[in-house]
Amino acid sequence: KHIAVVPGDGIGKEVTAVGKKVLEKIAAKYGHTFTYEEALIGHVAIEATGDPLPADSLEIMRNSDAVLFGAVGHPKYDNDPSAKVRPEQGLLKMRKELGLYANLRPIKLFDELLDASSIKPEILRGADILFFRELTGDVYFGKRERIEDGEAAYDTMIYYKYEVERIARKAFEAAMTRGKKLMSVDKANVLESSRIWRETVLEVAKDYPEVELEHQFVDAAAMLLIKDPRRFDVVVTGNLFGDILTDEASQIAGSMGMLASASVGDGTGVYEPIHGSAHDITGKGLANPMASVLSAALLLDISFGMKQESLDVINAVDAVLKAGFRTRDIANADTPADKLLGTDTIGEEI
Amino acid sequence: KHIAVVPGDGIGKEVTAVGKKVLEKIAAKYGHTFTYEEALIGHVAIEATGDPLPADSLEIMRNSDAVLFGAVGHPKYDNDPSAKVRPEQGLLKMRKELGLYANLRPIKLFDELLDASSIKPEILRGADILFFRELTGDVYFGKRERIEDGEAAYDTMIYYKYEVERIARKAFEAAMTRGKKLMSVDKANVLESSRIWRETVLEVAKDYPEVELEHQFVDAAAMLLIKDPRRFDVVVTGNLFGDILTDEASQIAGSMGMLASASVGDGTGVYEPIHGSAHDITGKGLANPMASVLSAALLLDISFGMKQESLDVINAVDAVLKAGFRTRDIANADTPADKLLGTDTIGEEI
Ligand SMILES: CC(C)[C@H](C(=O)O)[C@@H](O)C(=O)O
Ligand SMILES: CC(C)[C@H](C(=O)O)[C@@H](O)C(=O)O
Repeated sequence: KHIAVVPGDGIGKEVTAVGKKVLEKIAAKYGHTFTYEEALIGHVAIEATGDPLPADSLEIMRNSDAVLFGAVGHPKYDNDPSAKVRPEQGLLKMRKELGLYANLRPIKLFDELLDASSIKPEILRGADILFFRELTGDVYFGKRERIEDGEAAYDTMIYYKYEVERIARKAFEAAMTRGKKLMSVDKANVLESSRIWRETVLEVAKDYPEVELEHQFVDAAAMLLIKDPRRFDVVVTGNLFGDILTDEASQIAGSMGMLASASVGDGTGVYEPIHGSAHDITGKGLANPMASVLSAALLLDISFGMKQESLDVINAVDAVLKAGFRTRDIANADTPADKLLGTDTIGEEI
Repeated sequence: KHIAVVPGDGIGKEVTAVGKKVLEKIAAKYGHTFTYEEALIGHVAIEATGDPLPADSLEIMRNSDAVLFGAVGHPKYDNDPSAKVRPEQGLLKMRKELGLYANLRPIKLFDELLDASSIKPEILRGADILFFRELTGDVYFGKRERIEDGEAAYDTMIYYKYEVERIARKAFEAAMTRGKKLMSVDKANVLESSRIWRETVLEVAKDYPEVELEHQFVDAAAMLLIKDPRRFDVVVTGNLFGDILTDEASQIAGSMGMLASASVGDGTGVYEPIHGSAHDITGKGLANPMASVLSAALLLDISFGMKQESLDVINAVDAVLKAGFRTRDIANADTPADKLLGTDTIGEEI
């Protein structure tokens, strides 16, 4: 199996290195041969080539069996709204070019982290959510421009029925293997693109009569997620609402540093932490690598069909947490100093 | 002072009746003369006239000094994405016609409700946020339609500089009277309408050098709001992001049933709970009327400049909570049965 390793920016580099090591360990243990090829994306790619997603990076990803991805972004662009070339363009282009229309974000709390969250343990205990975020449509990819002599700017929030149908189908299929409950999130009381979303989800639902389908408006969903996370099982939503709700849901898992995601569709699957490049802690060895490690676990499971290998990785993370080891983001006042580890050292434990 | 009372749909009717009673009580206590006129909006207006905002409702609002508003919405439309006439159109038209471009949503936790939230008390204690949600622009009012023979649908997310400027100015002004901290929330790493938002906020910031301005992406803001609500003071954001974030933030105040809002701009100010029509509990006398009562307090303060009267109302709510009275949404296992009141009975206490 050939794996493209695409660390990107900021802490992406540090955490992806740990994810890769875990894959090497698994290969050694099970006698698999994994080969690796690095590729540039984001700010580091702009610095090296002027392009946030150089053609040969895309080529490397296309020719691999899976992509282990880090993060993109750089603060330098954030206060320069007029920058023409931006790291995020590389990420969005990759998603579009590889046809990664389904972004799976499992939100599950490791028992040991019940106290790491800002939410009360009794509200969280047992929460287990699987988000399906649509990833190649919506306002992320519609036409955008400045108009009226630069006095206004617009983006186009657009959905095609076929885009909604294929992600809805994936979500219903997943619901069938879990609690047979699906929540679809939209803003159909205001938006036409949400009304076509809801119509199409209702159509697809006919093929899954056993699944209990619920619709929520995005504002209500954002509230309920905190109020009663156990009410959620499988959730399907658009690209923008999915971006917001899954970041919010990271608090259910104690920290963004724990959350992995899989992006799949027509081409090579991409596996990445849901956290960003976090330049404020870059280079300090403080980043929690578990999201990258758990992304590697998703990669083994979904792209390679290696269930046992994947479970091994998850169990390793669990064991390290059970042994009391913590990175800063999931530590608390009771964590003894000798259990507080950095990116590489907790990686070694895993 | 002439007040338009516009209860709208569902529990809107029940809670607005309590808000109105509180205004009557204040008028009696202070010797003010308040006159009231009722108007229809939403589903009840559609039923009566076919129009979610009949011309004479708008006229009544225009001719009043303030509007006490309830909620709009009806489940019947929610599973019928093709309905042409919808209750929410009345609400959006009212906001646009009255020029209500600034929606203020104060998020403050009454001490007595520290335990009512799903968030840990030690995370919440002292949280005090003032949201400025832009209310007459964004994807709520851009062009939308079905295209490609009904195979696709789009909405236009659009901002004009002047729209951003006027709401930003209000937010900076408020920041000057509070902690001199302002957070602007956008998605400028992807959206052009967010980049014009950020550019304009940066421009306006030059007039308020004392205010510490911070930008956050909406996904990060949704996460931080739960992780560390005390990090927030004044927040300014667009219509859609504001809709989502303020509903989410309701969990900081223990319940949506506690949150009031003021919509102001060019015309008559409108005061309303941030909760919706809640048809599941309509007619049962269970709804928490405090959001409507606190909306009346905002009305007294902002539209009538009656600071002491407004404070009286807030203190009344506080006293009722201190006395242990609760509606179902803010009760817990320790609430004695005789302190668990309904909409009208807790209204009487207030
Ligand atoms: C970096 C950004 C463009 C991206 C997104 O909004 O999709 C990120 O927030 C994510 O969720 O992967
Ligand atoms: C009912 C709906 C159209 C409305 C909105 O999205 O603005 C509501 O959620 C609100 O926040 O006032």
